[in-house]
Amino acid sequence: MGRLRFSVLATDGRARLGRLGTRRGSVDTPAFMPVGTQGTVKSLLPGEVAGLGARVILGNTYHLMIRPGVETVARLGGLHRFMGWQGPILTDSGGFQVFSLAARCEVSEEGVSFRSHLDGARLSLTPERAVEAQQMLGSDLMMMLDHCPPAGAPRDFVEQALLRDARWAARALAARDRRGAALLGIVQGGAYPELRARSVELLAELDFDGYAIGGLSVGEPKETMMAVLQDTVPQLPPGGPVYLMGVGAPEDLVACVGLGVDLFDCVMPTRMARNGTLLTKRGRLNLRNARFKQDPQPIEEDCDCPACLSYSRAYLRHLFMARELLAYRLATLHNLHYILGLMSGLRRAIGQGQYQAFARDFFAARQGNPDNE
Amino acid sequence: MGRLRFSVLATDGRARLGRLGTRRGSVDTPAFMPVGTQGTVKSLLPGEVAGLGARVILGNTYHLMIRPGVETVARLGGLHRFMGWQGPILTDSGGFQVFSLAARCEVSEEGVSFRSHLDGARLSLTPERAVEAQQMLGSDLMMMLDHCPPAGAPRDFVEQALLRDARWAARALAARDRRGAALLGIVQGGAYPELRARSVELLAELDFDGYAIGGLSVGEPKETMMAVLQDTVPQLPPGGPVYLMGVGAPEDLVACVGLGVDLFDCVMPTRMARNGTLLTKRGRLNLRNARFKQDPQPIEEDCDCPACLSYSRAYLRHLFMARELLAYRLATLHNLHYILGLMSGLRRAIGQGQYQAFARDFFAARQGNPDNE
Repeated sequence: MGRLRFSVLATDGRARLGRLGTRRGSVDTPAFMPVGTQGTVKSLLPGEVAGLGARVILGNTYHLMIRPGVETVARLGGLHRFMGWQGPILTDSGGFQVFSLAARCEVSEEGVSFRSHLDGARLSLTPERAVEAQQMLGSDLMMMLDHCPPAGAPRDFVEQALLRDARWAARALAARDRRGAALLGIVQGGAYPELRARSVELLAELDFDGYAIGGLSVGEPKETMMAVLQDTVPQLPPGGPVYLMGVGAPEDLVACVGLGVDLFDCVMPTRMARNGTLLTKRGRLNLRNARFKQDPQPIEEDCDCPACLSYSRAYLRHLFMARELLAYRLATLHNLHYILGLMSGLRRAIGQGQYQAFARDFFAARQGNPDNE
Repeated sequence: MGRLRFSVLATDGRARLGRLGTRRGSVDTPAFMPVGTQGTVKSLLPGEVAGLGARVILGNTYHLMIRPGVETVARLGGLHRFMGWQGPILTDSGGFQVFSLAARCEVSEEGVSFRSHLDGARLSLTPERAVEAQQMLGSDLMMMLDHCPPAGAPRDFVEQALLRDARWAARALAARDRRGAALLGIVQGGAYPELRARSVELLAELDFDGYAIGGLSVGEPKETMMAVLQDTVPQLPPGGPVYLMGVGAPEDLVACVGLGVDLFDCVMPTRMARNGTLLTKRGRLNLRNARFKQDPQPIEEDCDCPACLSYSRAYLRHLFMARELLAYRLATLHNLHYILGLMSGLRRAIGQGQYQAFARDFFAARQGNPDNE
């Protein structure tokens, strides 16, 4: 595991405070990674994202492959230089978007072939090509190509996929350059405990730098997600970070940190922001609501994000109603500030052995808010 | 003219270097005012707009009247506080948008009635209401309600409009609070020299703090605009600033400063930015052009705007092709930086008696660029 250094600095129950050392600087964990799908965290400059406390961001290999192309990004000096982000970047393999966004996917032992959702161009992705693409982007934390079955997929389908994943995992590791970045394996297995265990077992035999848990938060009941994590996290080989892919709702972050997860990513905080839904200690606040039309208060009273320091809910609502570009930017700043502040609070609590109290206070503050779904 | 202090610090031919003192700070002229139509200079924070060198911005009374409503803005502390802009704000009267954007306008001696372009609501604007609305917004530089006839309107129509304008002008001045902001008169008269002269004559009898030239850049040939300015600017009463409404193409700014104009506003630099057209010393550069797909250069080599300091044309083009929000923001930063830098260059040249040389160099640098229309 020479490509990634991970130290656990403190534990509190299963929750752990850690530090992840990458070739582009270290990241305190548990950490949330804002998503920069197409080479930009939507509406923000990299300096703002870093200023909010983000230390690592995520880039989507599928999107960058089809536009502007990984070869183009490589020719322009790699993704860091292209988008102006200095810190570490984790890239996904592209597989998740192939299965969720592209058209006419066909999976074979070799890989997956599909049509671009943009122009219908025929493309394919193999375990080797996914690693090559991520290396061309200059990724610091790469993900293996895996097949993420939909929630509720039949057992046999899920089993065949994870057995193929294990063969793809070995090919991904073999495809990595000698000086390549860290590479993480992905545990699948749906909601079947014995398949999750089998997936862990197969991947643990390989030389990954850490493990991600995939195939969750894809539409299954929340209890299923928690049960899988409860079982699976302790089975993972020790020594590397545990990354829960695609999870980022505040309540899930707090709960999953308590089950030992170290890394998270999700478009939810930024996508919600662009829809006018703001995250606060009391839960969600929908700025489009007419009751904010003349509300002089900030989104959240004691928040020191740029939106709350200077603007009223009435102004922000006006920006949303008028579809002004500044709306998306200010709301994104607030939601990322909230999420990154939440992670920082979790880290502090774990360090002080106060995770349980932190989680209790977090859930208590959200009681009685009708906007929380 | 106690509400506005204007001093001419130097002249160079007809071009003049001045300083406009408002109740919210002073503005070096000639100056360009970025347009914040709906209480925001699209995509930017006020601190960024000020950081680019803007000292005064424009707000559109028509837009703010219909959304969120001037009463709402007033209740929230006025437009400055609402949008977080500390410097002076010039507001138009709302008339221009009524005639260009609203539906079913009916002009009478009393004022103009119309339907909102948003929801069809029946509204009306009078000279008094236009002043009242601007005062509720907290405007520092208000404009009288006028009727801007379309380019090529018949002489009789234009004459009736400007005679009515003169009566509206007196009513606007009478409607102003004793502690109200500066109020500027608007010269109309289309392309008819004797009507322009008549408009100036009528307005000069009234106690305005400065004069704007309206009804230009509305579709007439460029020679017509220059001829009107050539005649009209010297006829204006001395002592106040001269404001040319709705003009902001770089070549027009350079030419019109040479005819004695002190203030300009235009959506062109910011609207062009959002369409991917960037302003440079060589003229326009259309970032969507395929030839920039792998271009590692910045928009402009020696530009120190945030877009040019950190990003390649290839990256910016990618953002435009992917319709990423950051595209509009970075392009707006560049274009406003360019325009405000151009104004600063003009001021320096006038102060050094080098306006002619500046204008010659400006036009020479743009030769041979096929993107300049």
